[in-house]
Parts: sequence; structure tokens; C-alpha cells
Amino acid sequence: MSIIKKIALKLRVKNELAKDVLAEFFGTFVLCSFAIGASCQYVLTRQKLASFLTLNLANGVGLVFGVYTAGGVSGASLNPATTIALCLHGLMDWYKFPFYTIAETAGAFFAAAVQYRVNIDMLNAYDGGNRSTYGPNATAGMFSTFPNPDVSTMNCLWDQIWSTFLLIVCVFAVIDKKNFMPLDKGLLPISFGSIVFGIGACWAGNCGYPLNPSRDLGPRLFTAIAGWGIEPFSYRNYNWFWVPIVGPCIGASLAYFGYMLFIELHWEAEEGEEPEKVETINVVNHHEKIHNHEMQGVNNPAFLSSDGKHV
Amino acid sequence: MSIIKKIALKLRVKNELAKDVLAEFFGTFVLCSFAIGASCQYVLTRQKLASFLTLNLANGVGLVFGVYTAGGVSGASLNPATTIALCLHGLMDWYKFPFYTIAETAGAFFAAAVQYRVNIDMLNAYDGGNRSTYGPNATAGMFSTFPNPDVSTMNCLWDQIWSTFLLIVCVFAVIDKKNFMPLDKGLLPISFGSIVFGIGACWAGNCGYPLNPSRDLGPRLFTAIAGWGIEPFSYRNYNWFWVPIVGPCIGASLAYFGYMLFIELHWEAEEGEEPEKVETINVVNHHEKIHNHEMQGVNNPAFLSSDGKHV
Amino acid sequence: MSIIKKIALKLRVKNELAKDVLAEFFGTFVLCSFAIGASCQYVLTRQKLASFLTLNLANGVGLVFGVYTAGGVSGASLNPATTIALCLHGLMDWYKFPFYTIAETAGAFFAAAVQYRVNIDMLNAYDGGNRSTYGPNATAGMFSTFPNPDVSTMNCLWDQIWSTFLLIVCVFAVIDKKNFMPLDKGLLPISFGSIVFGIGACWAGNCGYPLNPSRDLGPRLFTAIAGWGIEPFSYRNYNWFWVPIVGPCIGASLAYFGYMLFIELHWEAEEGEEPEKVETINVVNHHEKIHNHEMQGVNNPAFLSSDGKHV
Amino acid sequence: MSIIKKIALKLRVKNELAKDVLAEFFGTFVLCSFAIGASCQYVLTRQKLASFLTLNLANGVGLVFGVYTAGGVSGASLNPATTIALCLHGLMDWYKFPFYTIAETAGAFFAAAVQYRVNIDMLNAYDGGNRSTYGPNATAGMFSTFPNPDVSTMNCLWDQIWSTFLLIVCVFAVIDKKNFMPLDKGLLPISFGSIVFGIGACWAGNCGYPLNPSRDLGPRLFTAIAGWGIEPFSYRNYNWFWVPIVGPCIGASLAYFGYMLFIELHWEAEEGEEPEKVETINVVNHHEKIHNHEMQGVNNPAFLSSDGKHV
Repeated sequence: MSIIKKIALKLRVKNELAKDVLAEFFGTFVLCSFAIGASCQYVLTRQKLASFLTLNLANGVGLVFGVYTAGGVSGASLNPATTIALCLHGLMDWYKFPFYTIAETAGAFFAAAVQYRVNIDMLNAYDGGNRSTYGPNATAGMFSTFPNPDVSTMNCLWDQIWSTFLLIVCVFAVIDKKNFMPLDKGLLPISFGSIVFGIGACWAGNCGYPLNPSRDLGPRLFTAIAGWGIEPFSYRNYNWFWVPIVGPCIGASLAYFGYMLFIELHWEAEEGEEPEKVETINVVNHHEKIHNHEMQGVNNPAFLSSDGKHV
Repeated sequence: MSIIKKIALKLRVKNELAKDVLAEFFGTFVLCSFAIGASCQYVLTRQKLASFLTLNLANGVGLVFGVYTAGGVSGASLNPATTIALCLHGLMDWYKFPFYTIAETAGAFFAAAVQYRVNIDMLNAYDGGNRSTYGPNATAGMFSTFPNPDVSTMNCLWDQIWSTFLLIVCVFAVIDKKNFMPLDKGLLPISFGSIVFGIGACWAGNCGYPLNPSRDLGPRLFTAIAGWGIEPFSYRNYNWFWVPIVGPCIGASLAYFGYMLFIELHWEAEEGEEPEKVETINVVNHHEKIHNHEMQGVNNPAFLSSDGKHV
Repeated sequence: MSIIKKIALKLRVKNELAKDVLAEFFGTFVLCSFAIGASCQYVLTRQKLASFLTLNLANGVGLVFGVYTAGGVSGASLNPATTIALCLHGLMDWYKFPFYTIAETAGAFFAAAVQYRVNIDMLNAYDGGNRSTYGPNATAGMFSTFPNPDVSTMNCLWDQIWSTFLLIVCVFAVIDKKNFMPLDKGLLPISFGSIVFGIGACWAGNCGYPLNPSRDLGPRLFTAIAGWGIEPFSYRNYNWFWVPIVGPCIGASLAYFGYMLFIELHWEAEEGEEPEKVETINVVNHHEKIHNHEMQGVNNPAFLSSDGKHV
Repeated sequence: MSIIKKIALKLRVKNELAKDVLAEFFGTFVLCSFAIGASCQYVLTRQKLASFLTLNLANGVGLVFGVYTAGGVSGASLNPATTIALCLHGLMDWYKFPFYTIAETAGAFFAAAVQYRVNIDMLNAYDGGNRSTYGPNATAGMFSTFPNPDVSTMNCLWDQIWSTFLLIVCVFAVIDKKNFMPLDKGLLPISFGSIVFGIGACWAGNCGYPLNPSRDLGPRLFTAIAGWGIEPFSYRNYNWFWVPIVGPCIGASLAYFGYMLFIELHWEAEEGEEPEKVETINVVNHHEKIHNHEMQGVNNPAFLSSDGKHV
């Protein structure tokens, strides 16, 4: 082992941003593997081995383990819409946004490719090799989302704004350290997973529940390359593919303002602190945070230990 | 950001009761959004994307995140019946009851309105624009509850008294600090959610499981305004709509006496304490509570640390 | 309130055994209310509002909240088979066994009566008032268990020995304090619930999964009185009703020896302790235990704090 | 009791490896009892009492309680593929590998035998006594896995490499102590269970989801002996049975390198430590670990208490 380890140590990345990018890539890869894998099993076994409830639960599990995978390094936003909300909140720096987004989209793209390979025989048995976006044997929807034919693009946009709004409000609620019912940090990923499960149980009817620009765009790009052609983009005259990109970003921004107005704004500031920065469980930038604690710990050892309980 | 924050700080509400009202409104809004959203997906996709089990789970998730959202501010009763039980127990002051109830009903009303908008295209495809309370395409039941035609109004009243009794008994069991198996406070919302899930799995047959006057009345008012007319109220000759209001209030009151008689009464009081006030995990009025702890901490440092574990 | 409280305090039970009996009664009542309620919804809605999975989950939830309700007072065995295992283990005194068993059976009987009342209109609509134990509209199985016609009574006995064996082995595994992965005490009820869920998912085919003499006998007695006649007992020529009583008791006893032989026996004793008594999370008799800790705490303050973490 | 205890104490195993072997045997027995029991209920009740979702959940529960049973003694690898990953990581010594593998396979074999006995009447009713591996009444698949007829053996190999890769990546993510979101140790088994659930929800379509050479080979051996003949091995001209053995071993090895490259490698080493050995929650060899802590504790009492939180 020691030789492998010596080689490995040479590969060690020291740059913080590069580490974050690696982690966001890998975490989103895990998340999207579950999400796409669940759709494949649901569609390709013709619901014999999976109900829609199974798919919803698997999407929750995917987020749980995506966050466990990347959480310690990059904070595991895994979703450009989440990144926007965290940046608005001051929990993350805006300059990281494009790097995170590219890493996340690449992770989702790669997950789609792996799922394509893992399910290739079932896929060929299902569609006889004719990859299609429309019709009874359509399979593009296993990778990225498409709207319910009964529902207008505008209604889907509202749906995405709404569901991502709710997702991020609930995320803020469980990471709000002023909250009287703080979850143990190790359980946060599980709570995030249950929100996604709940959204899938309530708001999948309009257009699935993308909630995440990268999770939708990455696999859509993959299908365009891997045999489905331009249709995943040209669907509804190019008046669909942008909804899962734009809707979540709007929803996440509104969520920041909503949670702020109804709840967070009214916490009383403790003396000498700037509430928004310190009081939320800082799921990002924890390196600096630990540093702060050391600073404060010098003057106030009690702070360190009490914090040790909840963080 | 700093300009937005300065504006925001001007909006900060300082009055405790006003904060509580905002939080109850927002928490009940989250709870009812899941509850109504789940019904909509169940009905409007004609059970294709949701089984009744999915709906039950989503109702549980809704309570979980409703409580996480409001718990830190107002204690997240989110339900006038719960408020009654907490007031009987001495965990909340009766003067707050009307304010909480109005805020909760308004939150539920607003949730119904948002769900109506989010699902409007599927709703029109389902009923062709004819909003009805009776018949095969009835949709009023997505917003508020209606009885099983086989079951009398009186049986439904028993059902609501029973289910809310059980709900509140279980709530008292998990928040009872004398209990030998205390749940970590951050997990309380999850336990509340599983009770609601369990009730939906066992007692949905008579009349759904409203369990909550506000969650039922708010959306019923909305449907009356939004196109269903007076029928949601005139159903069974005006001999239905009061059941989900009265039943839960009776059940919650009985639960207080039941838990007291069988369990709580028999705890031995620790010296110098008034058991009911101090020993239950105080999910409400925590500001005063923290104050008390500080007081006691002066004389009894051990108390502080032991308490720090469970609260 | 103060007058009510004064009256209440007069009702306070001081005798330890009497408290235990009250708690076992109430806890088993909660457990069986969920268990029977779930069966009623499954049968009476003809699986429209509940799948068998829903029923399995509700059985798990029932155990969770039965244990939360009674756990702090009596240790929440809620099941004579569990009581036997705890007595064999030395975690409970044998003299309590008959009192617990009577209280548990009474709680189950009372739960059956309440569920009968709560579901009376649906029940009459289902069977037209003809209460039967056999045939397509049989409803006795909603209250107590009956075997799969394909399966012999002897096979069912093996089934009950096996499932209760597994149940108690898993219970011992999670309450074993020497175990390297100790669950937080507040989460123990949830783990017990998931075992019951898992057993229902795996071993319901032979004869449902009674697992508990009281949970089966109490409701069977109720049905015999409430209109089903002697059939719930005379089924298979009186060669069935004893299986859910005898099987679980044998299985639970074997579980004690099984866990002991494979796992617990081989823990190294810490100096000066009698391993079985002290090392298991003592879910029963905690009053004495707390007393012991105080004793030991005098000489070994570290023990107290380290114990405080896990217990 | 005291006589039984004296006899029992004579049976006490003192040898560490022998204890590990006993625990791995018993833990894998628990795990496989749930896994095989779930398949039996799913197949033999013709999906009436279990959906595929039920089966997935039961597989998760099985891993949870398998790990709780054996975790404190042997670290509960319960799976030769996991053992390989732990050995590669340096968390376990390679010399233990053959002992663990034999114990695990024997546990799985014994679980198959018990499940055969517990389900014998239902099995005979299902197949009329004709044990078969092919055709509509095939039952060999209840014990070990077989591929989807549409899917090539090579695709299944990819499937097993992939799913076990994902399983072990997620395991590494939750046991990585450098991770910012560490799960409480007592909850680790539950997280492992949810990964297996998620994999069953996403990747059961190709060939079930063995993920574990012992869990597949042990029961396959049992069926070969118990009446199914050579067919469970000769299936696809002896070109199937090796896939659930080889695939998981490859996948688990790749997972070690994958997690290392993307996440673990880039943690900054704390001063004076060898990161991989110390920083992962050491689910194996905890005896030595505790010893280390005592050593370090002498010089650094703070270390002990901070570690007490997470371990």
C-alpha cells in the first residue's frame, strides 16, 4: 500500500477551489446517478420493479448521499439554484458560482453516460434501438424532464419557481442555527433528502421535479449526443428546455427573501454579531468558520464546547 | 447586499406576538402546501404518479418541515387543536389562542390559493373547468376533507376525536422530559411527522384525516371563493364542515387528560419544581425558559449542562 | 387549572408496580390501536386507501409510539414474549410478569373495542352486519391473526418462533451497550419499529405477524364477545389460537440464548462488573439504575459523564 | 440463572478472530434472513402481501440489523466485497479476509436453510413440489439472483461493478471522519441500509442487486443441495453464477480508488497523523483503536472528549 499512497499523495490537490470543484462534480454525479437510475428502472421495467413512490424515495436517497459525499469539502450545493440562494445569503462567494455550476453540470452529464451504459441492454429491449423523445416508447424522459402534455410551459415555470422556493425555504429552516429545533449536522443530508422526496410526492405532475438546472441540462446534453438528436432541446419548439434552468434559479432567490422576511429577519441579534453570517449552520466555507471558532475560542472556551454540540 | 440588509432590518418585527403570528402563518403555509399538493397529485394524475401511501408520507413530510420552519419562533403548533392542548398543559398562554388560530387559518387559505395556481392546467384538464364537490370528477376534496358516503357524520366526529386524541397523546409522549427515552430536540419534528403518517395509514377511511381545524377550514373557505361555490359548506345540509373543526378540539383536550392520568401524573416530582411546567420539553415560550435556565444555572451548574444534552 | 391539578395530584399513583401496569396498559393500547386500525383501513377500504406496505409501516409506527408512551415508566415491553426475554436476561424481575401480561392483554382488548367503534359504519357497509371469521367478507382477521389456508399450524408455529426470535435478537443488538454502534436512547423506539416493519415485509405470508401473545389474544377475546362468536377461537378445531401465544414465547426465549451465545457472551467483562446486568441499556427498572449511577458517581465521576452520553 | 451463566461463561470465546468469525456469521445470517425472507414473501404471495418496494425496504432493514448485530465485535463487513475495500483502505488486515468470507458465506447458507423451512408450505403450494430455476414458477431466484433475460452477462457484470462501486463510495462518505457532516456512529447502520435500499430502487432491473458474493453464493449452494439441483450453477452454461461474486469485488476496489481520488486524498492532514488510518470512523479493529485513544488521552485529554462525541 505504501507505494500507492506515495503516488496518491502526489495527486493531492491543494487549491481550495479545485477541491471544491472535484467534490461538486463527484457529489452531483452520485446524486444524478440515483435520480437517473431510478427513472430508468421505473421506465424500463415498465413499473414492474418500481412504482413512482420508489422513484421518489430514490431521488431522496440520491440527494442524501450526494451531500454526504461532497458536504465536507464544498458544502455540497450540487445545484446552481442552491448555490444562488447560498450566495444571496452570504454563505458562499459569488466568484465560485460559475465553477460550481460547470462542475455540477459535468457531474450530471457523466452520470447520464454511466446510466446509459449500465442500462443499455434493457434500453434496447425497450425501444428496439429507436431512441425517441415522443411517443409510447419515449426514453429521453429517463434522463431529463419533459412537461405533462396537459400543462402549459408557463404553468410549468410557475411549478418550478414554486417547488424550488419550497425546497430552499425548508433547507434554510433546518440549517438555521437560531432555530429552536436544530438538527444534528450529520442528519442534515437526510432532511434535505426528505424535502426532495416530499416535493416528488406533491409536485411531479406538471413536469417531473427537476429543481436543479445542472441535473436537467447535463443529461439533456448527453441525450442530444448519444442518439436522441436535437429533440430533447427542440421539444415544444425550443420552448421547454429552459424552464428547468430558469425556474429553479428564480424560486431559490425568492426563497431567500421569503425565509428572511417571515423568520430569519426577526431573530434577535446576539451582541456583537452579524446574524446572517454566523448564525446559520455554515454548510459552506467551513474552513474559514473553523478558523473563526479558534479565534473566538481563545476568549470564550464555553463557546467552543457549546458549539461542539450542535455543529 | 448591504443596502438590502439595511432595508430588511427596518422591517424587523420586535413584538413577540407578531413574530409568533408570522411564524405560525408561514409554518402552516408550508404544512398545508404539502398536504394539499399531495392530494392534488393523487387526484389529478388519477393515482398514476401517487398512491395513497405517497400522500400519507407527504403529509408527514409537510408537518416535519412546517415545524422546522416555525418551531424556533412560535413553537410551531400549526393547529388550533394542538394549541388548545398546549394551553391546557400550561405550555402556552390562552390569550395567544385567537391570534395563532387566525394566523394558521390564513396560512392554510394562502397555501390553497398557491396550490390552485400551481395545478390550474391539470385541474382544468381533469374537470373540464367544472369545479364540483360531488360526483366522479369532484375536486373539492383535494383542498378540504369530506366524509366517506358510507359513514355517518356522528361516526366521523368520533373518528376525529379519536385520531386527534392519539396524535396529541403521542406528541406528549415524545416531548415528556421525564420520559426515559427522550428524543433529541432536532428530531422532534420528524417524530411528529411519523405520527401523522401513521394516522393517515390507519384512520383515513372515514373522512380523510383533517386533525386540524385551520388546515381544513382555510382551504374550504378558499374553494368557496374560487369557483366551487357554497357546496363545500352546504355538503350534507351544512352537517359536515364543522366536524373537522370541533372533533380535533375535543380530541386534543381529552388527550391532555388521558396522558396526564395514565403517565404524566405519576412521575415523581423532583424537589422544588412544579412538574408540568418544567419537565416537558418546552416547545413554546422558549425565550422565558432560557431565561429560567440562566437563573437556575447560577446556583446549579450541573443542571445547565445536563439540560444542554436534552434540550 | 390549579383546582384540577389539586384533584389530579390526589389520583397520583405512588406504587411502582401500579405505575408500571398503567403504563403497559396505555402503551399496548397505543401499539394495538395502530396495528388494528391499519388492518381495518386495509380491509374495509378494500385496499383502496392502504396497500400491505402501508399496513406494515403503520405497525412499525405503532410500536414506536407505544414504546415512547410507556418507555419511561415501565420499560415498555408491551409484549409478554419480550417480557420473558427481559426476565431471562435479568433485566426485569419475574414476579412482574403476570401483572405486565394482564395489563398488556387488557390494553389490546380495549384498543380492539375502540377500533370497533371508530370503524363501525365502514364495517357494517363491508359485511352487511354479518360478522364472520371465514369467507370473502371475513373481518375477524382485522383484530387477531389467522393462518394462510395453504400453511399448516405446525409451519405457523415455526414461523412465529422464528420471527419472534429475530425480533428479540435485533432488540438485544440495539440495546447492547457493549456494542460499538450504540443508538441514542431516544432513537431506540424507532429502531424497534423498523424491526417490526421488516418482519411484516418478510414473514407475513404464513399467518400475519402477531409476534405478541397479548396483541393477539386481547382482540380475539373482544371479537368473541362483540359479535363474531366462538369462531375466532374454534378456528381449525381450536388448533390455531394458541400459536400466536406459544410461538412468540418460545422464540423470545431462544433469542436470549442465541444472542448470548453468538455475541454477548464474548464481550470482555470490565473489571468488577457483572456484565449482563449493567452493560445492556437498561430499558426497565431505571429507577434502581439511576440510583446505582449515583452510587458509582461518588467514586467515579468520569463514569457518570461518559454514561450520560449514551444513556 | 446463575448456573446457566456459569456454564455460559465456560463457552466464552477469548480469541479475537474467533469472536469476529462468530459475529460475521451471525450478522450475515440476520442480513440474509431478511433479504431471502423478503424475496419469499414477494414471490410466494404472488405480490399480494409485498410490492417490489417492500422488498427493497426489507433489504435495507436487513443490512441495518445485520450491522447492529455484528458491528460491535467484527465491524460488520458482512460482505467479502466490503472486506476488500476495508482492507485496501487499511481499516482491516488482509489475513482476516478468508476467515470473514467463509463465515459470511456460511451465515448466508444457514439463512437460506432457515427460510426454506419457514416457507416450506407456501413453497409447496406455489410450485407443487417441483423446484425449478426456469419458467413461470421458478423459485431459485428467491434465494440467489438471476439475470433479466433481456440483459447480457457482460452488462450484468457492469451493473454489479457499478452498484457495488456506488455502495462502497457512499459507505466511505458516511464513515469519513474528516467529513463536515459526520453521522452519529449509532446511525451508521441506518445509513448503510438506505444505500442498499436506494440501489434496489435504481439498479434491480438487470440482475436483482446481489452486491455481495457471500449473500449470493451461500444460498445458491443451499438451493443446489436442497432440491433445485445443478441448475442454479449451470444457468446460462455456467456463465452466470460468477458475476455476483466477481462484480462486487471489482466494484468495491474501484470505489476505494474513486473516493480516494475525488475526496479523501485532498483532506489536509492534521499534524503528526497518517490520515487514512486515523480519520475514518474505524468500524473495524476497534479494540486496538480504543487502546490508541487511551494512549493519546494521557497526553491530550481534550482529544478524548472531542472524540467521544463522534465515535
